[in-house]
Amino acid sequence: MKPFTILLLAIALAFAALAALPFAPVHAEDEASPVLGGKMPSGYRDWKLVSVAHEEGNLNDLRAVLGNDVAIEAYRQGKLPFPDGAIIARLAWSYVPSEENNKAFGRAQSFVAGSPTNVQFMVKDSKIYAATGGWGFAQFDDGKPAHVVVQDCFACHVPAKGQDYLFTHYAP
Amino acid sequence: MKPFTILLLAIALAFAALAALPFAPVHAEDEASPVLGGKMPSGYRDWKLVSVAHEEGNLNDLRAVLGNDVAIEAYRQGKLPFPDGAIIARLAWSYVPSEENNKAFGRAQSFVAGSPTNVQFMVKDSKIYAATGGWGFAQFDDGKPAHVVVQDCFACHVPAKGQDYLFTHYAP
Repeated sequence: MKPFTILLLAIALAFAALAALPFAPVHAEDEASPVLGGKMPSGYRDWKLVSVAHEEGNLNDLRAVLGNDVAIEAYRQGKLPFPDGAIIARLAWSYVPSEENNKAFGRAQSFVAGSPTNVQFMVKDSKIYAATGGWGFAQFDDGKPAHVVVQDCFACHVPAKGQDYLFTHYAP
Repeated sequence: MKPFTILLLAIALAFAALAALPFAPVHAEDEASPVLGGKMPSGYRDWKLVSVAHEEGNLNDLRAVLGNDVAIEAYRQGKLPFPDGAIIARLAWSYVPSEENNKAFGRAQSFVAGSPTNVQFMVKDSKIYAATGGWGFAQFDDGKPAHVVVQDCFACHVPAKGQDYLFTHYAP
């Protein structure tokens, strides 16, 4: 082979090797052990419902908060702080009018869940996440871990300190 | 005892007996067998989430649709019509702004679930409810069966015939 062909092959191989690497953004704050190991907890979509909400503005979504069994039990029993092992999942979908529902209601009033936006998790481990109220924070876009600065997530949740940093209340 | 005392006792007993009767409004259309036997299915609050929605207007609520395992499997597999045994639960809560969340976001944008309004169920039994697309309809206010005319419920759901009379789509 000519040297130029070898160079082209080498470049192609380098790109292929790069593409094969798992998506793992390296940041100072999550280098040691990314929250949830960089994976969505299996079965989270089957978890029980905590509550629902609508955010206007830039978010413009409909959202559902689900909890694993440890979290749901803590919510239902009013246990504070939440025990280690509790995980909260916040699912969100774009906020879209439903023409189909509006026709049935006879007026424009119905808004439903469109395409998913992202999924966020709060994971309770009072030792590992002692610096952030005992909670680790993670976000997934299209199932892939997104870069979030855990300290920033936590800073926003500080006003809810009285409810163990959880904004969402259980909806009976 | 004097006759008057006996009469008073008899009246008191009659009222006590009436109060002890289960709440069971009798209507022509559900005399034979009220949908769900006039009881909310046990454990429905633990069912998996189908989707969420917001209704404006007189309803002015946030709502979550849950499904029992038969319903969730049918939704996820796109099985139409839904098999007998499928039950859909529609929970709803008043639509209230969250001052707490708005403070954290730095703007008025957040609406959350307030007090519960009512819970509605759709129960699939292609034989018993053959006259209404195979679905029985029930509503509970404060856990007590409300009077609904199943034919009226069904009439509103007819436009969704192509999805087995279900307006709600599964939110991934």
